[in-house]
Amino acid sequence: MSQADCIFCKIVAGQIPSTKIFENEYVLAFLDVGPVSDGHVLVIPKSHCERLDQAGPEVMAEIAKVLPVLAGGVQKATEAHGYNLLCNNGAAAGQVVEHLHFHIIPRHSGDGLFSHWPAGQYPDGKAAAIAEKIKQNINL
Amino acid sequence: MSQADCIFCKIVAGQIPSTKIFENEYVLAFLDVGPVSDGHVLVIPKSHCERLDQAGPEVMAEIAKVLPVLAGGVQKATEAHGYNLLCNNGAAAGQVVEHLHFHIIPRHSGDGLFSHWPAGQYPDGKAAAIAEKIKQNINL
Repeated sequence: MSQADCIFCKIVAGQIPSTKIFENEYVLAFLDVGPVSDGHVLVIPKSHCERLDQAGPEVMAEIAKVLPVLAGGVQKATEAHGYNLLCNNGAAAGQVVEHLHFHIIPRHSGDGLFSHWPAGQYPDGKAAAIAEKIKQNINL
Repeated sequence: MSQADCIFCKIVAGQIPSTKIFENEYVLAFLDVGPVSDGHVLVIPKSHCERLDQAGPEVMAEIAKVLPVLAGGVQKATEAHGYNLLCNNGAAAGQVVEHLHFHIIPRHSGDGLFSHWPAGQYPDGKAAAIAEKIKQNINL
């Protein structure tokens, strides 16, 4: 399940070089070539899918097995104080490569990254209405 | 496994109200009270752990089962063009509540959220050195 025009599928296939930090049958992790901070890692399923909501249960199970260990290893190796796990889905959300990927971004106190967090507030009744609509769209 | 002073453990226990969108034996999802965009959801394990790298395999397996469906449902319900999955670990990374949580943040084209992405570049040799150090800190 690879796509001919997908840069991450080419990395999986070894057609484009990457600096790997972990690999098993299902998952590949490598350094982001445009790091937001030193040790910024991308974790991807080897099989192609575009977005989180399109990922099958097998893929997610394999990702879930390794993410905590990879995140802990990245933080330790970079002597970071914390890290963000970030998965952008869709161009509107900042996804550039259309192959599901999870960023692990080491963070240091006061580094100023992603510091804008424009929290809002719901007017009366709106939260309940939105929650109801979401529930109607969840089939679990 | 709940912590007396943890606001999310209190939400799980029903001691603090929340606008729930999904709940099963292991996982709770509810609206963030300070939404970055309408329909901003938090997905948490019901058992307390602080960070992704401290989450056990059972917890991660349960989270992984529901995240894709919840993310898809949130996007559909909010008619968003995309969404971010974000998990902040440690105060340095913007974690405010010290109970593992995954943000699902609906995104609309041109909404201007999280638009600053200060990608850097590694000088020669640095990526290999960092990757080596990370590999030494991964036990998988």
